Amino acid sequence: VKTLRTQGEWETIRKLAGRWPVPKNVRVGIGDDAAVVKWPGRHDLLLTSDPLIEGVHFDAQATPRQIGHKAIGRVLSDLAAMGGEPMWALINVAAPPRTKARRIEEIYAGVRRLAARHGLVLVGGDLARSRSLQLHVFAVGRVPAGTAARRRGSRPGDVLYVTGSLGGSRLGKHLAFEPRVREGRWLRAGGWVTAMMDISDGLAGDLRHLLGQSGVGADLQAARIPCAPAARRLRDGRSALTHALCDGEDFELLFTVGPRKAAALESAWAGAFRLKCTRIGVITRSRSTLYLVDECGVKRRCPARGFEHFR
Amino acid sequence: VKTLRTQGEWETIRKLAGRWPVPKNVRVGIGDDAAVVKWPGRHDLLLTSDPLIEGVHFDAQATPRQIGHKAIGRVLSDLAAMGGEPMWALINVAAPPRTKARRIEEIYAGVRRLAARHGLVLVGGDLARSRSLQLHVFAVGRVPAGTAARRRGSRPGDVLYVTGSLGGSRLGKHLAFEPRVREGRWLRAGGWVTAMMDISDGLAGDLRHLLGQSGVGADLQAARIPCAPAARRLRDGRSALTHALCDGEDFELLFTVGPRKAAALESAWAGAFRLKCTRIGVITRSRSTLYLVDECGVKRRCPARGFEHFR
Repeated sequence: VKTLRTQGEWETIRKLAGRWPVPKNVRVGIGDDAAVVKWPGRHDLLLTSDPLIEGVHFDAQATPRQIGHKAIGRVLSDLAAMGGEPMWALINVAAPPRTKARRIEEIYAGVRRLAARHGLVLVGGDLARSRSLQLHVFAVGRVPAGTAARRRGSRPGDVLYVTGSLGGSRLGKHLAFEPRVREGRWLRAGGWVTAMMDISDGLAGDLRHLLGQSGVGADLQAARIPCAPAARRLRDGRSALTHALCDGEDFELLFTVGPRKAAALESAWAGAFRLKCTRIGVITRSRSTLYLVDECGVKRRCPARGFEHFR
Repeated sequence: VKTLRTQGEWETIRKLAGRWPVPKNVRVGIGDDAAVVKWPGRHDLLLTSDPLIEGVHFDAQATPRQIGHKAIGRVLSDLAAMGGEPMWALINVAAPPRTKARRIEEIYAGVRRLAARHGLVLVGGDLARSRSLQLHVFAVGRVPAGTAARRRGSRPGDVLYVTGSLGGSRLGKHLAFEPRVREGRWLRAGGWVTAMMDISDGLAGDLRHLLGQSGVGADLQAARIPCAPAARRLRDGRSALTHALCDGEDFELLFTVGPRKAAALESAWAGAFRLKCTRIGVITRSRSTLYLVDECGVKRRCPARGFEHFR
């Protein structure tokens, strides 16, 4: 008998999504960072939801403010990945009756602070009893009609970029990251990107989703991948590169740019942001195949996979 | 130290909501069945979210299809209460890794069936690991701008109505109810209602929310309250009337109509629906006070309260 553990998260979602017809007013359904739906007027709506579960997305060491920050940061990162403007959010909080009221208030303080910084307004939600603490955040954003950045759209020859640095997020960044909302909107509004997504399940795993949806492959320059200092601090026998490829919860942006625009993008980026943006590889024709290229130019298949729930 | 149990659901929400400024593009924020936000064009957006938690909203006897039905039914009932047209939904499913893939598929079959019947389209969501099964559904609906039915708006003299019958929902209806989407839209579109909400936490408790938001009171005619057959079948020493007042999860509509429109409403309703709609009382000036009137005309304060999480 197949269980969620044996079937896995992605296969389960793929099977469920396949049974659901996509009507005309839906531009992007299940499978991207956010859904894109049409609405009369000049904007499309972006819809996204993310869970934050005790023992999975945070543990007993996390402060209530960090929990609130991460819950909101996750949906903001989804909206950023589509190049969207955050609008409204709802939060369902499920918590044991013994939970201190003060703890819930502090979680909301974390929610409020990050949401306000990005113009996201909390307009509702629900509070219910549960065995452990879970937050489920639902967010609405918008983009000018037809302009949402998607995972689909990369073409062979496109240059692959990533913002910030990757790996070792569990040492702290996963509770304190800044969602790349400004950067995502800037990239989308400038018409720079051919495809974009955020890195939540690890560069290797998420890049495979982008490649799969675009029907292309990629050569990653191993030495160019920006490993975070935290990725080097984890002394568990695995290299910083492996952490950068596999760890997940970086909440950086991964995107591709047409080869003729790449130089102009790098220059414009440097003028707009202090955050670094690194060229890490190139899109190829080798459908859904991911290669790592070492400093001598030797190519090998990238064995790394991203994070999967249930496994 | 205050906990969720000692402070209670409503007081916690009230405290959290009070700290959140409501910007201009939000018509209705926290505290109604759904949030109402402005959007350029002819429609307002309705946003709502509801959890469905194992051991709280359903138990081991519920079939997967019933679980899916109830999860979607709850948000549809919220949209119905605002007179809204269902548009899109996202579902977060949190489940233990040992969960059978087939069980998740069956839950989605229940989701799909009810959603399709009301034109609600699933466009995304998330699947994550958790100790017990939880579904969190987010839904978007719409109403012509400025026309959403609200809990606020009842005036002294208005006639109080309820659809269907109440009480004993735990014997089965809570897993199989039909959300009153058509009826809610009809009531809103015809301009019949001065205030409306759905009954999820019991007539007595929910009516108090409507009275509180409208700044009025009500006299309920005890003998007129439509008790469901299931409310009589529960042989637990409490009367059918007590069950109808307190049980919750009826998912019927509770609404008020101006006294001069009441007769016309009753006639138009009878022409439009087979579902019954019962006049159960009248709105009074006695702010937030709920009286029960017996068949001899004797008034007493209604002691019944609605369901509260955490208590």
